[in-house]
Amino acid sequence: MGMTEWAIIRLIRSMVGEPPPGVRVPLGDDAAGFHFTGGDALLTVDSIYEGVHFNLDSFNHSDVGWKAAAAAVSDIAAMGGEPACALLSIGLDTAPSEEEVRSLVSGVLMMLDYCNCALVGGDVCRSPAGLAVTVTVAGTPPQGGPLLRGGANVGDHIAVTGFLGDSAAGLLILEEDRKKLQSRFPRLVESHLRPRPRVQAGVLIAGAGARAMEDVSDGLGVDLGHICEESNTGCEIQESLIPLSEDMLAFAAESGVDPVRLALSGGEDFELLFTARQECFERALLTCGEYGTVVTRIGTVTEADRGCKMVTADGRNVDLGAGYEHFG
Amino acid sequence: MGMTEWAIIRLIRSMVGEPPPGVRVPLGDDAAGFHFTGGDALLTVDSIYEGVHFNLDSFNHSDVGWKAAAAAVSDIAAMGGEPACALLSIGLDTAPSEEEVRSLVSGVLMMLDYCNCALVGGDVCRSPAGLAVTVTVAGTPPQGGPLLRGGANVGDHIAVTGFLGDSAAGLLILEEDRKKLQSRFPRLVESHLRPRPRVQAGVLIAGAGARAMEDVSDGLGVDLGHICEESNTGCEIQESLIPLSEDMLAFAAESGVDPVRLALSGGEDFELLFTARQECFERALLTCGEYGTVVTRIGTVTEADRGCKMVTADGRNVDLGAGYEHFG
Repeated sequence: MGMTEWAIIRLIRSMVGEPPPGVRVPLGDDAAGFHFTGGDALLTVDSIYEGVHFNLDSFNHSDVGWKAAAAAVSDIAAMGGEPACALLSIGLDTAPSEEEVRSLVSGVLMMLDYCNCALVGGDVCRSPAGLAVTVTVAGTPPQGGPLLRGGANVGDHIAVTGFLGDSAAGLLILEEDRKKLQSRFPRLVESHLRPRPRVQAGVLIAGAGARAMEDVSDGLGVDLGHICEESNTGCEIQESLIPLSEDMLAFAAESGVDPVRLALSGGEDFELLFTARQECFERALLTCGEYGTVVTRIGTVTEADRGCKMVTADGRNVDLGAGYEHFG
Repeated sequence: MGMTEWAIIRLIRSMVGEPPPGVRVPLGDDAAGFHFTGGDALLTVDSIYEGVHFNLDSFNHSDVGWKAAAAAVSDIAAMGGEPACALLSIGLDTAPSEEEVRSLVSGVLMMLDYCNCALVGGDVCRSPAGLAVTVTVAGTPPQGGPLLRGGANVGDHIAVTGFLGDSAAGLLILEEDRKKLQSRFPRLVESHLRPRPRVQAGVLIAGAGARAMEDVSDGLGVDLGHICEESNTGCEIQESLIPLSEDMLAFAAESGVDPVRLALSGGEDFELLFTARQECFERALLTCGEYGTVVTRIGTVTEADRGCKMVTADGRNVDLGAGYEHFG
């Protein structure tokens, strides 16, 4: 009953609509062809594996496809860019049913459609264990050039979009497999299964003149560390300023988990973390707000020798990195 | 003793040299940045998995890296394009030693250097089983546009570069694990472990005005079937014209395997299969010959209703597809 490689490729071709402008060679040949107006392209790849990044008890195939595509799209958003086209590589340990392939590919296509990105190619092959999905996304940089991790300057504001820790809370709910919690906190579960990369906000933040940006994929602590390391700076953030959603706080209180810990080390929020000087921060706050995206200032970029610090709610000054584990 | 994700990424960054022209954002940020002069890009991805596409008894890590990169580069060559930049995604089930990572990445870099392609990004993560390597390659199309599978016309010559079946013979030798055979037929083993995509020949064949092209990755029978299907044509090739190398013939005679079967269904030769009308075929033959690449005419493109046929050495007319299994 399982599908062959060629049947899968034919099905995917049938599911992809008419190629949008820019696509020179659509899905189905040795390589895809795409035209980048101006010539500049951003390129990124993300792989997720069954048993490591997801399991098929919590995720359906469509969620897996969505999330794999979202993780790659988020890397483009993290530079202020816009996704343009994508390649999908699927590894399968057993021949899948048509329903499974349809579901997986529809998840990928829903995510890509959501951000005007065309599926133009990929490959299908056998994997030794479980489902493996790799998505490559090519995009276009913002006019002023991509926002890198290394552009932060001492005195910049540090800010994030949206709320942090929702995805980590959603994962905990899924792991506990408590149907009741899932139905009470559907938005947290959705944040984990179907994250929405901040493409529009990224464009607006780049346009506002931010200096450094990254998506929150490993947790605020680690990701802010990347910006400081690449920019040769330190940072000081305020625990009390970290934006936490009401339902995440309610879930955390009820479950006895530390909400700040979820925000700092949970990861996979795919919110944008950026630094900008005062007037650019204000412009980003304003334009993102106009489109319904909350932007929150959480701290300041400092000299490198000050390290990466967080001032806790009770006024202590702790290390943002490994230190967090020990101060709770 | 195993390396962490960040140590691996740092090591890879240290192994990649100064970024060549075209690279706008080198390895190490959320996404890579590349400038495609003229704006047109070709994009492809290939994944290979331990236990499916290779095992670490026959392959060392460097061979794995080389082969993963070669398979993706070959897709660009198959369109007459030139590779420009690449992304490397590595999945590992256990923390690797520095030596293993160095070896893997050096194999990727050797292959990419060989065809002037820069490593600009990628990701590293945990896999559920064994080593998984995915390489994305972006390239530039030839001036006249990429050579697609669907461009063949009735009456075109069908031709291939190099020799077919060497890689399949090399795989048999590795599977039998006969050290004696390996030392007697090193070129066949090398063909399997370290295939050399035909980038230069692809450019020359496109420049000569060929109409359809594909790389031989699944075996001549299957790959020629793709061209015929996409071009809505049939084909007739001559068994006696299929180019077989002397050492492959010697190995086949000695081992009692059918050399034509290896050529037709072995795959992974990464030679180029193309169709061209008479004068373009002659031009391709000449220019490829000047650069040391043999080009051989093996048949003719026919009307679709004639099907995909091969005239055997003893004069029978057999089906090229599944039929081959039954005529031996």
